[in-house]
Amino acid sequence: MCSVVGIYKNQNAAKKAFYSLFSMQHRGQEAAGISSNENGKIHTIKNRGLVTEIFTEEHFQTVLKGDMAIGHTRYSTAGDDSILDAQPVYAKYGLGEISIVHNGNLTNKMPVRNELIKRGAIFQTNMDTENIIHLIAKDYEKNTLQERIVDAVKKIEGAYSLIILSRTKMFAIRDPYGFRPLSIGKIASGGYIIASETCAFELVGAEYVRDVKPGEMVIFENGEMKSIQLFESKPKKCIFEYIYFARPDSDVFGKNVYETRVEMGRELAKELPVDADMVVPVPDSGVASALGYSKESGIPFELGIMRNHYVGRTFIEPTQEVRDIKVKMKLSPIKHKIAGKKLVVIDDSIVRGTTSKRIIRMLKEAGAAEVHMRIASPASKGACYYGVDTPNPDELIASRMSVDEICEYIEADSLAYLSIESMVKSIKDKKEDYCFACFDLDYPVEPKE
Amino acid sequence: MCSVVGIYKNQNAAKKAFYSLFSMQHRGQEAAGISSNENGKIHTIKNRGLVTEIFTEEHFQTVLKGDMAIGHTRYSTAGDDSILDAQPVYAKYGLGEISIVHNGNLTNKMPVRNELIKRGAIFQTNMDTENIIHLIAKDYEKNTLQERIVDAVKKIEGAYSLIILSRTKMFAIRDPYGFRPLSIGKIASGGYIIASETCAFELVGAEYVRDVKPGEMVIFENGEMKSIQLFESKPKKCIFEYIYFARPDSDVFGKNVYETRVEMGRELAKELPVDADMVVPVPDSGVASALGYSKESGIPFELGIMRNHYVGRTFIEPTQEVRDIKVKMKLSPIKHKIAGKKLVVIDDSIVRGTTSKRIIRMLKEAGAAEVHMRIASPASKGACYYGVDTPNPDELIASRMSVDEICEYIEADSLAYLSIESMVKSIKDKKEDYCFACFDLDYPVEPKE
Amino acid sequence: MCSVVGIYKNQNAAKKAFYSLFSMQHRGQEAAGISSNENGKIHTIKNRGLVTEIFTEEHFQTVLKGDMAIGHTRYSTAGDDSILDAQPVYAKYGLGEISIVHNGNLTNKMPVRNELIKRGAIFQTNMDTENIIHLIAKDYEKNTLQERIVDAVKKIEGAYSLIILSRTKMFAIRDPYGFRPLSIGKIASGGYIIASETCAFELVGAEYVRDVKPGEMVIFENGEMKSIQLFESKPKKCIFEYIYFARPDSDVFGKNVYETRVEMGRELAKELPVDADMVVPVPDSGVASALGYSKESGIPFELGIMRNHYVGRTFIEPTQEVRDIKVKMKLSPIKHKIAGKKLVVIDDSIVRGTTSKRIIRMLKEAGAAEVHMRIASPASKGACYYGVDTPNPDELIASRMSVDEICEYIEADSLAYLSIESMVKSIKDKKEDYCFACFDLDYPVEPKE
Amino acid sequence: MCSVVGIYKNQNAAKKAFYSLFSMQHRGQEAAGISSNENGKIHTIKNRGLVTEIFTEEHFQTVLKGDMAIGHTRYSTAGDDSILDAQPVYAKYGLGEISIVHNGNLTNKMPVRNELIKRGAIFQTNMDTENIIHLIAKDYEKNTLQERIVDAVKKIEGAYSLIILSRTKMFAIRDPYGFRPLSIGKIASGGYIIASETCAFELVGAEYVRDVKPGEMVIFENGEMKSIQLFESKPKKCIFEYIYFARPDSDVFGKNVYETRVEMGRELAKELPVDADMVVPVPDSGVASALGYSKESGIPFELGIMRNHYVGRTFIEPTQEVRDIKVKMKLSPIKHKIAGKKLVVIDDSIVRGTTSKRIIRMLKEAGAAEVHMRIASPASKGACYYGVDTPNPDELIASRMSVDEICEYIEADSLAYLSIESMVKSIKDKKEDYCFACFDLDYPVEPKE
Repeated sequence: MCSVVGIYKNQNAAKKAFYSLFSMQHRGQEAAGISSNENGKIHTIKNRGLVTEIFTEEHFQTVLKGDMAIGHTRYSTAGDDSILDAQPVYAKYGLGEISIVHNGNLTNKMPVRNELIKRGAIFQTNMDTENIIHLIAKDYEKNTLQERIVDAVKKIEGAYSLIILSRTKMFAIRDPYGFRPLSIGKIASGGYIIASETCAFELVGAEYVRDVKPGEMVIFENGEMKSIQLFESKPKKCIFEYIYFARPDSDVFGKNVYETRVEMGRELAKELPVDADMVVPVPDSGVASALGYSKESGIPFELGIMRNHYVGRTFIEPTQEVRDIKVKMKLSPIKHKIAGKKLVVIDDSIVRGTTSKRIIRMLKEAGAAEVHMRIASPASKGACYYGVDTPNPDELIASRMSVDEICEYIEADSLAYLSIESMVKSIKDKKEDYCFACFDLDYPVEPKE
Repeated sequence: MCSVVGIYKNQNAAKKAFYSLFSMQHRGQEAAGISSNENGKIHTIKNRGLVTEIFTEEHFQTVLKGDMAIGHTRYSTAGDDSILDAQPVYAKYGLGEISIVHNGNLTNKMPVRNELIKRGAIFQTNMDTENIIHLIAKDYEKNTLQERIVDAVKKIEGAYSLIILSRTKMFAIRDPYGFRPLSIGKIASGGYIIASETCAFELVGAEYVRDVKPGEMVIFENGEMKSIQLFESKPKKCIFEYIYFARPDSDVFGKNVYETRVEMGRELAKELPVDADMVVPVPDSGVASALGYSKESGIPFELGIMRNHYVGRTFIEPTQEVRDIKVKMKLSPIKHKIAGKKLVVIDDSIVRGTTSKRIIRMLKEAGAAEVHMRIASPASKGACYYGVDTPNPDELIASRMSVDEICEYIEADSLAYLSIESMVKSIKDKKEDYCFACFDLDYPVEPKE
Repeated sequence: MCSVVGIYKNQNAAKKAFYSLFSMQHRGQEAAGISSNENGKIHTIKNRGLVTEIFTEEHFQTVLKGDMAIGHTRYSTAGDDSILDAQPVYAKYGLGEISIVHNGNLTNKMPVRNELIKRGAIFQTNMDTENIIHLIAKDYEKNTLQERIVDAVKKIEGAYSLIILSRTKMFAIRDPYGFRPLSIGKIASGGYIIASETCAFELVGAEYVRDVKPGEMVIFENGEMKSIQLFESKPKKCIFEYIYFARPDSDVFGKNVYETRVEMGRELAKELPVDADMVVPVPDSGVASALGYSKESGIPFELGIMRNHYVGRTFIEPTQEVRDIKVKMKLSPIKHKIAGKKLVVIDDSIVRGTTSKRIIRMLKEAGAAEVHMRIASPASKGACYYGVDTPNPDELIASRMSVDEICEYIEADSLAYLSIESMVKSIKDKKEDYCFACFDLDYPVEPKE
Repeated sequence: MCSVVGIYKNQNAAKKAFYSLFSMQHRGQEAAGISSNENGKIHTIKNRGLVTEIFTEEHFQTVLKGDMAIGHTRYSTAGDDSILDAQPVYAKYGLGEISIVHNGNLTNKMPVRNELIKRGAIFQTNMDTENIIHLIAKDYEKNTLQERIVDAVKKIEGAYSLIILSRTKMFAIRDPYGFRPLSIGKIASGGYIIASETCAFELVGAEYVRDVKPGEMVIFENGEMKSIQLFESKPKKCIFEYIYFARPDSDVFGKNVYETRVEMGRELAKELPVDADMVVPVPDSGVASALGYSKESGIPFELGIMRNHYVGRTFIEPTQEVRDIKVKMKLSPIKHKIAGKKLVVIDDSIVRGTTSKRIIRMLKEAGAAEVHMRIASPASKGACYYGVDTPNPDELIASRMSVDEICEYIEADSLAYLSIESMVKSIKDKKEDYCFACFDLDYPVEPKE
């Protein structure tokens, strides 16, 4: 994942970008950065770590000045060059200076990169964002940045929600499929915000205006917002935003995430009823769906598992004798509540199965009579090529085992997943407008590598 | 607050103490420490910070060896000497070596200290724990530590849950009122654990045996556990353990905390009904009570306020224009859910009133039609002399204002507190066995200072 | 300044690069980095800070593997993008992968950069090293890296000591003037080392072979070392290496730095004698010259000023009343020794004059009867365009004041600088082979910006 | 070792103590602390680390207020309780508050401690300073602090330079032998300073007045300085202060340390001449003596070994193949200078012999024809019981080997130590006034443990 933000024409643009990134920290905790535009000169600070660790008041006072800013939080596995892989990506090029933030993943990164290298380009990072800057820089025949951006995005494929900062303008672009979200808000104290999630609007005092449309380029120039539809909109919005990524208080693709999750829980109860004494969520990921399940089924909702928020980096090795201690440091059962009871345990998804297995074992040790696992999404079987950092498909338990086999592996009394059809009902929208590729392996854009 | 733990006759005693302190981190985050006993020699590591920050694997491998250990987490305001105010307090004295951890507060600290100083004692810290060591050290006529401890505790008044580690034994003592909890568990891999909360038993693989009784001294010696009732038990157990301090998965004073909080919510609904569209907890403190309120009233429970767990230390000053930003960085309303709705908002208590005011303002800005505040405890009016670190009484809003005035101040549409009587119903126990002094100013032990 | 190192065909190449950079830390303390080549794959670690702060054992075990490595320490003022300005600069390009380290400064950076930008290049940093990579990458007509490097260095002007690491080879190049040093050594445990200073050879167990010649390209390939003279050698070696930069135990341009400094002190005594009781160096920069001055003049050498090596970052503001406290925290006079005495104080250079003024005031307060300042180099008047990070010329006191005026400003009893002629005598070499531009403003290569 | 400082009646007393401790950092780098007296209330900050790491501007603004302050830097090996072993030691006791700093070592620590424990004292640290506070606190019959201090110091034996801060006064006391130095200065901006070394006077703007005499108690009260001779003065001043500990710019026991070291070098040349080409000091410890050796012998002084000041903590393991790399990271030979030459190498002392052996090997590898080691002190054979943290006697090479054997072990061509008689000549004072116990095992006070 990742998050992007742009602030256009607001005093303290960079600080507003900071607050926005803070609100979107859940979309990427590895690295973060901000570029600001101070009278046409672009300044950048980026580093590894959380946004509250990276930025200091001094940065805003002395470096990140100006009334335009873009920012990024990065979600990723670390490589040897990872410090360099933070965004924004800044460059001096033929038309001046430019800085770009990108959420998504290009499916034709390598063919484009190889073509660019043949034409003399050098690549200093592994980020596909660098492709986009090169395409813009090498488009000599076009004399305006806008034309060059249009040419560039016509050459790239896959998922991209982009914000581009130049000496005088800001551009926000979403790919024709609109895989990743991107919303526009109006800031009470002046100017605009573009952000991956609307939860970023709260701390900067902005009101939601509308989403950037799939295939649209929004141009901020001379204090105004203009729009060009670059491509026909063929929406394939990422269903996983609702299931896992987005913050419950965000509206994503025009729908509130919390409410959508409650609906998924309701559909789960309709589709996969179970005779039980209580509905227990795996905190925090399963809470909203569990509430929906309880409302629909009438089975009481109980916070039967507690989450410990002090879990951080510890330098202590778990002792041999204590099994499953890492899960237990994070989650604890409320024994009195669950002892002797039949539980429906709700989680948002199962990835490798090991955590579910440990949770169920913990609940049984705490005395649960039965544990029925209900998952508020279909079984994840495939890789995502559009910006979700899924594990390798052979690590996904559902790609290797049937539901019955998984149930046995995780030692549940029963297991069921929400069907794609019920999920569609819960979002109350057209199925064809969403990407379910990680569940049904029907990829809207084929990767070329 | 604070937490204490003792591990008796278990391999890796110090590491088990570490896991216990980790589980009780919520009772004190300022400082922590562990003393271990390696064949009669006591070693101590203590420092400021969280337990995961203080202790390293190397400490356990090279210093904190042995099969007995005691530990402490400290909750406190910082003073100039605060590094020294961490526990355990260790001393060489007439009978050898001793190390003590203490949860509570002595009400006759200064008279005892002054008397000790007259007899030549020096005090290197501000901790009343130091009093206890001096009383033991100066009791020359008694030749055994046990006799000296008995003499010492007869001279101290107030709240104390103590664990004492000597060269060969461990002692656990609870004051006659049993203000603070202290429970005994049996560790599956051998030996005993004594801890402030039973949530500490989970990570060390222990089963609850029983509570140390008010006025009881439990002696661990030669691998055995013995008991002496030092004082007649006159229970005045701290009701605030249920309201705020203890972890939901703990059993405190023999009752599960989560269930008790749900009951308080139920009583709140019975006593203080309101016509509303949904019950919304202030996370995380009001969640269990809100669930109970919803169950009893039938008004739907909704997580209408989201809590951001990334809030840590930030080096950024909030911008002037964004009011209430500190509350907003921590809590966010789910606008779609609450817009136009009548809310019953549940919290565990109101201290100064400023946070409640900001939350209500935030909910109104998010479109809430009405905000009815319901507090799952009586109005806090008085100081605690028994170990709860309450603010000065004149900072407590309920000591200065009537309920109507508070309601107006926090800008709620209505406000009500749970009565002491309803609270007693929710704990299903005898009222006279609990201390409600911070609510009714009826102090079981008068402070002498 | 800066330092570069290359290790060719040695086990633990990266760790040997680390030790070399440690030895050359005095040439740049802002940032450092190492690239290693593991079977044709290049890995890079770089960051801000000292080499001992940046690199960990884990880096060498898990990332910086292989038998070839290059490294860099950076000396620079910090800018907003400075994390990115660390070297090596790595890129994927048309012929594979490449990593470059560069000591020096290109005098035609901007014209070349502008030309490259016109041809579609993007620049992500402010380093002229990026120019070189682009020139290599865009030289499509040539099919070998060696040809491309030759073409590239023909397009750049100014000072450069370069080491280039490719998938299979290593190249070391020195500009036709040989402004900056670059020496080759043979490592006892196998392979070669190329380094800015020979002091890097000690820790890796290498023997000095020879210098890379001005205008020469040395190619390491298939375990062999080959040489091509790319340009006619027109030596203009930097005299400041002897005066200030290089470590006393290094041989630079074939001469030992310590001995050269002693000679400068001797020449200073011959040219600028003074009647005094003792020769006192400003530590550590003036020690060797002061020794030479004493030997030649017969005036006793005394360490009349002590240097405090504990000076680091302090968070304490100097109190108002204590003037000159920053100099005094670093340097202290030995009062008994200097009280009532006539001193010749020797330093290597005067930059802004403020430090000299404070030192002289400190010595007078300590009772010195007379302070005669002797500088073991000519008066610095001009900027350096070849890689020495001199202040802006108008900050150089000698560009604004005559020697008499400087003497008055620094409150010395007399002041004299070594002449260029005497300096030439002390290096015992041909004057025309050295660059004295910062003293005589006779620039061998004009900057084009 | 250790250092102590007291500031009496000066604005910013604590900050002046800070600057003094900074100047005396060489006497102890493990921990440091300051107590200040703000209108009778004593505040303390102490911690592990260097003084510049421990203290912040905020400490001085908000905690360490008042016009009296004492401070301490600690030199020690770390134990498990070492955080607590920092000084000042503060206590509340019968007459109010007190804080003490102590440089030295008590030879009857354990008998006094055992006696105190019998009388009910508890000891929270391993420091003998705690003994002194207990003796004062338990002296009930005396009603003034001054009387109690007098009684207390009459019960302790060994080496002590003490500074005691009470609510209204400051006391400075030196044991009858005056083992450790303690000097009084007058501060230009008002009040007095007492410090272990006069180098502390420079940064606070103080003039040397006189030393506290052996056996004297100096009392600062009502702005005045008074004196009481508690014991007959029987001076046994520590000769090692001149050899190793004190800073060259300090005057210790009334003599300048630098000059004394130069004299030791002269005596070394007289007593132990050698036919050589140059005198080379081991930096920095041997520099002053080497200068004296050169002056007396006429053999040229050369800085043939360079010291690298970047050596700090490194996380890198030395590679196997590079022998002696730790010494080489710190010291490097100037090969050109020493190759083929006969060297007299001067160091201040030999402890275990391993460093000398590595240095000599390094010089031989660099081409030295002969290495004659001359030590500017006698051979160290015994433990110090008076505050110098010497290794265990069996680790001292001179306690196990003859001079010839040591010479062979360290692979020198010849080795000689300065005799006690020559050392006496170099200090130009009466032999019986100094303690040479670590050389001749003639201990002025026998330890009782």
